[in-house]
Amino acid sequence: MAKKDRKAGRRKQPPPALRELLRIPEGEPVDLASYDSRATPGGPADKAAALAAVPPLAQRLAGLQERLYAASTAGGGRRVLLILQGMDTSGKGGTIKHVIGHFNPAGCRIRAFKTPTPEERSHPFLWRVRRALPEPGEIGIFDRSQYEDVLITRVRELVPRRDLGRRYGQINRFEQGLADNGVTLVKVFLHLGHEEQRDRLLARLDNPDKHWKFSPSDIEDRALWPAYQEAYELALHRCSTSAAPWYLVPADRKWYRNWAISTLLLEHLEALDPAYPEADFDVEESRRLLLATG
Amino acid sequence: MAKKDRKAGRRKQPPPALRELLRIPEGEPVDLASYDSRATPGGPADKAAALAAVPPLAQRLAGLQERLYAASTAGGGRRVLLILQGMDTSGKGGTIKHVIGHFNPAGCRIRAFKTPTPEERSHPFLWRVRRALPEPGEIGIFDRSQYEDVLITRVRELVPRRDLGRRYGQINRFEQGLADNGVTLVKVFLHLGHEEQRDRLLARLDNPDKHWKFSPSDIEDRALWPAYQEAYELALHRCSTSAAPWYLVPADRKWYRNWAISTLLLEHLEALDPAYPEADFDVEESRRLLLATG
Repeated sequence: MAKKDRKAGRRKQPPPALRELLRIPEGEPVDLASYDSRATPGGPADKAAALAAVPPLAQRLAGLQERLYAASTAGGGRRVLLILQGMDTSGKGGTIKHVIGHFNPAGCRIRAFKTPTPEERSHPFLWRVRRALPEPGEIGIFDRSQYEDVLITRVRELVPRRDLGRRYGQINRFEQGLADNGVTLVKVFLHLGHEEQRDRLLARLDNPDKHWKFSPSDIEDRALWPAYQEAYELALHRCSTSAAPWYLVPADRKWYRNWAISTLLLEHLEALDPAYPEADFDVEESRRLLLATG
Repeated sequence: MAKKDRKAGRRKQPPPALRELLRIPEGEPVDLASYDSRATPGGPADKAAALAAVPPLAQRLAGLQERLYAASTAGGGRRVLLILQGMDTSGKGGTIKHVIGHFNPAGCRIRAFKTPTPEERSHPFLWRVRRALPEPGEIGIFDRSQYEDVLITRVRELVPRRDLGRRYGQINRFEQGLADNGVTLVKVFLHLGHEEQRDRLLARLDNPDKHWKFSPSDIEDRALWPAYQEAYELALHRCSTSAAPWYLVPADRKWYRNWAISTLLLEHLEALDPAYPEADFDVEESRRLLLATG
């Protein structure tokens, strides 16, 4: 025992959890230019190592998802909500395909928020968000979210500045309420480089099979890049709370992005540590009755 | 050319499409006992061959799904609805995990129909079904469906027999309307053997991690097996129409079930032959404007 203890004492500290590395500190102003969009904090050494890490990660994610879902059948109220935000081509759709694709689709509730419909516009901005929340046991995924209402809305001046200013607090109270009700929020900002976006948009133009993913409005948004970065900085600053922190994931390297978001989800699911519920029926009696049916 | 023609003439006929092999003929009475639940019609020789067939199948399915979705962004209204019905443990959930898992989850709309809620019961039986339909470009998946309303409802005598009798026609008209509106229906009955169900239920009882999947009501339903088979025979007979045929998939072998349903979906998607839409903007002009943004 003594020997083991000494060994343990010499053991190197485990690497910090990725959630600690990527979390936007609460209450501090954010300067996006200080974050390298090509960085790979805490990640595998290279693409090959990241791809090799996928199968075991995927297996653990699927196992935890099943436990989360199983727990809900016995009344467990826990659920997870992944929020994806980022500029065009930053990889929101790719994350859903490659990361959420590891889960059992029956337990995922995915919602893409687009330009509000007339009905959605007739309600407070959180109305459509509340209707898309995951049920207990589910993994919810938002491709864009309530944050559009302080991002494009701010950049394009779609609502009076005074209303806009109130929304950060409304979002924080909304998210605090979700956290109080068993929702684990994982808010991810996909931090894409300005040049990388140009290359990705050009790639869409170069490939006729990708033209459907392109819209001339993407160019308008790109021309407003500095205003968007500022709007993101404000949202990350005002809304990274202890109940629902923001994580900044450098997004220029797709292999890092997929690895990092998988790992963030894994860390949050492991912290929940969902358990298969115990039988609420007499197992032996059920076996006997079952065998009696032939 | 002549030589090529002669060769073509000697070539063996391609195997019949799986949809032809598995389709329940329209208007004919169905005798489930005449179908072997362990059979593998049209399938690979064995489990190893079926598993080897999965990656290329998965790739083709994902590619077709993307085209279907892309087409919808240009106004295409086509969509697919997979309906899964079958006795407990017949593999509805397993199909979603293993077959639907090949698709991009962002384009799937999955709904499990359980015991109707009080709100659902206050509406006509198709009400909750209409609200769960896939949007254009999506693959919808129903784990149970409107058919519960002529299955458990019939076996457990939950509605007057006269109302029940009208439902087959209501379902047929509903499905004809869906087909007329661009919905490709793929209705799959998972044909499970009586002994195989006992073994699967016992396996759930033997594994504490599976107890959450078991309910004593599963034994009650099993005791009503003959009545359920009769109810299925009637539903397959009355509702296998040219607009929305039923497919009977032998379900004792999971590898065959997954291969067969993947292949049925593939055949239907290939028949739709969705195409990437052409750009509705000036590609060269967009490239020029994009490069001007730096």
